[in-house]
Amino acid sequence: MRIQVINPNTSAHMTDAIGDAARAVAGPGTEILAVNPADGPPSIEGHYDEAMAVPGMLAKVHDGEQAGVDGHVIACFGDPGLMAAREVAAGPVIGIAEAAMHMASLIAPRFAVVTTLDRTRIIAAHLAEQYGMARHCCAIRATEIAVLELDDPASDARARITAECRAAIEQDRAEALVLGCAGMADLPRALSDELGVPVIDGVGAAVKLVESLVGMGLGTSKAGDLAYPVAKTYTGDLGRFSP
Amino acid sequence: MRIQVINPNTSAHMTDAIGDAARAVAGPGTEILAVNPADGPPSIEGHYDEAMAVPGMLAKVHDGEQAGVDGHVIACFGDPGLMAAREVAAGPVIGIAEAAMHMASLIAPRFAVVTTLDRTRIIAAHLAEQYGMARHCCAIRATEIAVLELDDPASDARARITAECRAAIEQDRAEALVLGCAGMADLPRALSDELGVPVIDGVGAAVKLVESLVGMGLGTSKAGDLAYPVAKTYTGDLGRFSP
Amino acid sequence: MRIQVINPNTSAHMTDAIGDAARAVAGPGTEILAVNPADGPPSIEGHYDEAMAVPGMLAKVHDGEQAGVDGHVIACFGDPGLMAAREVAAGPVIGIAEAAMHMASLIAPRFAVVTTLDRTRIIAAHLAEQYGMARHCCAIRATEIAVLELDDPASDARARITAECRAAIEQDRAEALVLGCAGMADLPRALSDELGVPVIDGVGAAVKLVESLVGMGLGTSKAGDLAYPVAKTYTGDLGRFSP
Amino acid sequence: MRIQVINPNTSAHMTDAIGDAARAVAGPGTEILAVNPADGPPSIEGHYDEAMAVPGMLAKVHDGEQAGVDGHVIACFGDPGLMAAREVAAGPVIGIAEAAMHMASLIAPRFAVVTTLDRTRIIAAHLAEQYGMARHCCAIRATEIAVLELDDPASDARARITAECRAAIEQDRAEALVLGCAGMADLPRALSDELGVPVIDGVGAAVKLVESLVGMGLGTSKAGDLAYPVAKTYTGDLGRFSP
Amino acid sequence: MRIQVINPNTSAHMTDAIGDAARAVAGPGTEILAVNPADGPPSIEGHYDEAMAVPGMLAKVHDGEQAGVDGHVIACFGDPGLMAAREVAAGPVIGIAEAAMHMASLIAPRFAVVTTLDRTRIIAAHLAEQYGMARHCCAIRATEIAVLELDDPASDARARITAECRAAIEQDRAEALVLGCAGMADLPRALSDELGVPVIDGVGAAVKLVESLVGMGLGTSKAGDLAYPVAKTYTGDLGRFSP
Amino acid sequence: MRIQVINPNTSAHMTDAIGDAARAVAGPGTEILAVNPADGPPSIEGHYDEAMAVPGMLAKVHDGEQAGVDGHVIACFGDPGLMAAREVAAGPVIGIAEAAMHMASLIAPRFAVVTTLDRTRIIAAHLAEQYGMARHCCAIRATEIAVLELDDPASDARARITAECRAAIEQDRAEALVLGCAGMADLPRALSDELGVPVIDGVGAAVKLVESLVGMGLGTSKAGDLAYPVAKTYTGDLGRFSP
Repeated sequence: MRIQVINPNTSAHMTDAIGDAARAVAGPGTEILAVNPADGPPSIEGHYDEAMAVPGMLAKVHDGEQAGVDGHVIACFGDPGLMAAREVAAGPVIGIAEAAMHMASLIAPRFAVVTTLDRTRIIAAHLAEQYGMARHCCAIRATEIAVLELDDPASDARARITAECRAAIEQDRAEALVLGCAGMADLPRALSDELGVPVIDGVGAAVKLVESLVGMGLGTSKAGDLAYPVAKTYTGDLGRFSP
Repeated sequence: MRIQVINPNTSAHMTDAIGDAARAVAGPGTEILAVNPADGPPSIEGHYDEAMAVPGMLAKVHDGEQAGVDGHVIACFGDPGLMAAREVAAGPVIGIAEAAMHMASLIAPRFAVVTTLDRTRIIAAHLAEQYGMARHCCAIRATEIAVLELDDPASDARARITAECRAAIEQDRAEALVLGCAGMADLPRALSDELGVPVIDGVGAAVKLVESLVGMGLGTSKAGDLAYPVAKTYTGDLGRFSP
Repeated sequence: MRIQVINPNTSAHMTDAIGDAARAVAGPGTEILAVNPADGPPSIEGHYDEAMAVPGMLAKVHDGEQAGVDGHVIACFGDPGLMAAREVAAGPVIGIAEAAMHMASLIAPRFAVVTTLDRTRIIAAHLAEQYGMARHCCAIRATEIAVLELDDPASDARARITAECRAAIEQDRAEALVLGCAGMADLPRALSDELGVPVIDGVGAAVKLVESLVGMGLGTSKAGDLAYPVAKTYTGDLGRFSP
Repeated sequence: MRIQVINPNTSAHMTDAIGDAARAVAGPGTEILAVNPADGPPSIEGHYDEAMAVPGMLAKVHDGEQAGVDGHVIACFGDPGLMAAREVAAGPVIGIAEAAMHMASLIAPRFAVVTTLDRTRIIAAHLAEQYGMARHCCAIRATEIAVLELDDPASDARARITAECRAAIEQDRAEALVLGCAGMADLPRALSDELGVPVIDGVGAAVKLVESLVGMGLGTSKAGDLAYPVAKTYTGDLGRFSP
Repeated sequence: MRIQVINPNTSAHMTDAIGDAARAVAGPGTEILAVNPADGPPSIEGHYDEAMAVPGMLAKVHDGEQAGVDGHVIACFGDPGLMAAREVAAGPVIGIAEAAMHMASLIAPRFAVVTTLDRTRIIAAHLAEQYGMARHCCAIRATEIAVLELDDPASDARARITAECRAAIEQDRAEALVLGCAGMADLPRALSDELGVPVIDGVGAAVKLVESLVGMGLGTSKAGDLAYPVAKTYTGDLGRFSP
Repeated sequence: MRIQVINPNTSAHMTDAIGDAARAVAGPGTEILAVNPADGPPSIEGHYDEAMAVPGMLAKVHDGEQAGVDGHVIACFGDPGLMAAREVAAGPVIGIAEAAMHMASLIAPRFAVVTTLDRTRIIAAHLAEQYGMARHCCAIRATEIAVLELDDPASDARARITAECRAAIEQDRAEALVLGCAGMADLPRALSDELGVPVIDGVGAAVKLVESLVGMGLGTSKAGDLAYPVAKTYTGDLGRFSP
């Protein structure tokens, strides 16, 4: 099966890393297509960045559908445009925050999210509530690391993430950890060994959920709220996005 | 004070009607600027339409800030892009769904929403939950009227809306009604007279809330989650939207 | 329009201050009538005081209705007797706690309440839950200031309130503050300047909400739960309160 | 032990019936004092009636404390003034709605409330939420019987209550029934035999809970929210109610 | 009346202590039968222990029914097998956690649970949510005392429990305390005197609730979810447990 | 990898069917071990049956651990003994109700459960709440089909299930369906084709989730609530179950 993993920001280097993380867990028969929009924010660090990344991400969903992929992953921890993407797609579309949170709730009664900037905590908090995961999510901790700093080998980002994970275990009694940024997709195994609790990366979790759903013959329900968009012609520059 | 009322779809005729509804309730010292994006969906009838309307709407928020308006109304019942708009604005930004729901909860323990297409009900349901209004919202009823049909004098839209309102009162025990589309902004007073319960239009409600907040010297808190977007340069065609 | 602002306690000096705060935000065409009952508790610092203040407050609502006022504000942060007052009134009746909480939720994802005695915190907590505002209210902090001490120029009340507000910002991550007592109605602007976050006084917020509802032609729904009280003759001393 | 059962309305005939119901379930060593205020509403059928009944009810709590009773029951299904009464009392104070709902939740996963006037349903609904009982309460049904009609032998009240109970079992899948008015305190055993499900009267339930708490040496916690009222002098006619 | 108090673990010494605690609060006409299964875990300190204790506990319920007891208490703070036991019994079956939590909520707005091992906190948390008591339960604190250590006179268990109770009062603002283990059933009165807040033992609370329900002629509703088990023959060693 | 699928009832024929359903969706490298206890209920149709099935099921988890399986599925829609099984296992343990509900929530905003006996509906309802899925679960419908009737070729069970599914779509607006019994594991694909909405079988869903978690290197967190059971010697016949 072919799964399109969409990095909604425009940083190709991060797209590569996300693709690697996806391939590291993908099953033998799964082909991963890691893509990103050409236009938009180079990193997503708030609601405005999210909103501006969505049209490019949706265009990629549309392209993927044309190319016949079996499902999509939205690889940004805010799950931007998730419901809209589901309208466009026949197969499953999974956000990495929802994937990580659902998976975490299956192996631990209480998990914590460790994320980047403090200002993105509210996004994760709203998602936890929306997904019914608030009772499992015992803390959302920020590291104040900018998204693109995660790519910088000179940064002490890794040490700061580890410290915050440890605080979640000791102070919030977290029993599993969710990494709150697609840019952390390479860390979970090493962190888990170091910390002694399961550490979950949303990119891997989302890939496995798409594989699972496709493997069961399941796609997005088109019978109601997520039916294909109503056909209409968009105005002006956005004409090419007309559903 | 100057309030910018943004119709996030591109239908100028609807923008005019929304502007009229806003002016009908605005206080003596309030100037209403009714605007809409040039590019995007001509009507918003699902998550995809919403997502594609948001960048144009945010550009208008940005323009309004440059022009020094005191606050903004997002005049689409899904409140698309509300949190992103709040990041951009110094003054208050109010969505018409949140405005109508909050106002309704102040005058009746149980209100119903009467909206357009069945597929948009889930959007209203999610908002009611998010705003803490689910306990007050006893029903969300669809009329299966397309948004632009509301503008068509030959349509029986008015009769169907009235019928659905009556059903909400009789079957769901609604004590107030919220009209779930900016295109219904001219109906509340006549409907209220006919039905004997308060009928609330979100456009008017949002204008009054912006006036209220500005009148108290209050704007969007910039001290955390809704701080101005992090400065960065967007890539490609979206460069002009860079925060 | 004429709005009756009812201080449910009997301290005329506080009534004057509340009236001033109301007038400071009222629109040009609004006349504020600040009143208080002649009989009852001089300050409200618990459930018993609340219960004993309600009959006098309701008598004032009744008087206001006779005099043709357009709406009422209940100026005590516990919103005592709110539902009963709505049964009596044709126009809107707004409590200052609900007003402040709703307004705060429109400009900040998380607000804190700073109130007087520790023992009144439970009242604010119950209201936040009842109004659907619990998810926005990140803390309720007490200053252990007695209500009437707020009137005393020799008191260090102002400093203690400021300190508690600062703690709410730093420790609870509050992004806006709600002042939990009508006796603090003169503080918000100065506090807001000092603290750098919006500070909301319920008296002002409630006046603006009444103005807003009346301006839209909306009053309390009389179609169900809040219909006028069933006519009957009360016994003994309370005969004069018969509905 | 001595338990004071307070009918908060002024109808002595109903007080007698409530006293009888209380005595029917009271343990051998329990003395029941059934009282009602001299002043106030003869029946409680809405929020306004409730509010006006509370001061007289609280005076009775105070009198009972002076007389050394061990606990109190508030025998009106809206549990009016419950928190205020707990401030005044050393021993337990139990409302009949909370008593009946808690008891019902112990013997059936889903119970329904069958009450008097439609307009009082909202009061029961709010209480169910406040007490954490909303998940157990599958329906609140009104019979449109006025409270005092329950006393009238010529009325068909009994038949209408039975019919509504049956509807709750068949349509709402209720597995137990709660009678939503102190005036129905004589019905549960006969109804239960007829309907084949447990039928719970709040007066009896509250008496047993007071007996239970007193029997365990437990009273109202005076260590915080329910500490005795702050001493102060009330103004005017209400001076005699000063705490 | 005869109430069977079942200690679901096999420690006869603890059964005796539980029986004593039950008799200490039981009414004059109540006979207490304190029993425990012959087979199973000697103490219950996690989900696995709970699951393994349930069949023996259910056999005791069955035996009690045969012997004509009027109701049952499950004397382990996790309320193991409560719904299953209710299927088997005609009369009421009460768990000590639910009993203690409901009772606590009637005398204090906020209570804390003080329990044994840290790992059992999640069990109490899930129960509080399930019973609608989460809003009242302000903290669940562990003492890291093994269940059987409570029986050991040389242990400093009593001092550690007292310290944790004090912390709950001072740090969590608890106004009443619930002891989270049947093995603590002898402590409440002394602790309450020492701490100045009500301290509730679940064994006593459950006995009083069974007495109350039986005294009102109420038993478990057999009209739906809790009807007697479907008759069938179990296989193998469990044949004797066939319903 | 090897996954043990445990049918907690003793009906070998059903175990075979469950094993077939598991193998039908399992990935190429996955070996399915379908097992059932020798002792216990032949079908699970209520809380009592559940409780009695758990020890045998846990023994199978233990055996599987000894044999080095990578994870477990509990193939009964009530997810009996799930938390206890997680204490015993190192790898993931997934219940089929939780699996089906989580999966359904990823492809449809609202799903319905179609189950066997009416009396098991409460079990599904409690699970939906516990898993945070109540907001997605729009209905739980019973077919009144006994579990073992699903195996009987002469039964009209299939037609009745289809009818109930159709009712869920038309009356409850379900957009996806969850089959509420392991005995229905062969139906989803045919039903989905017939009904035009996704139909989810929990056995398949749980197998895919175990594969996913194991594929990511994740197992049950042993760092707190789900640590291995405390070592102790059980008494009597249950000695062999000692942890």
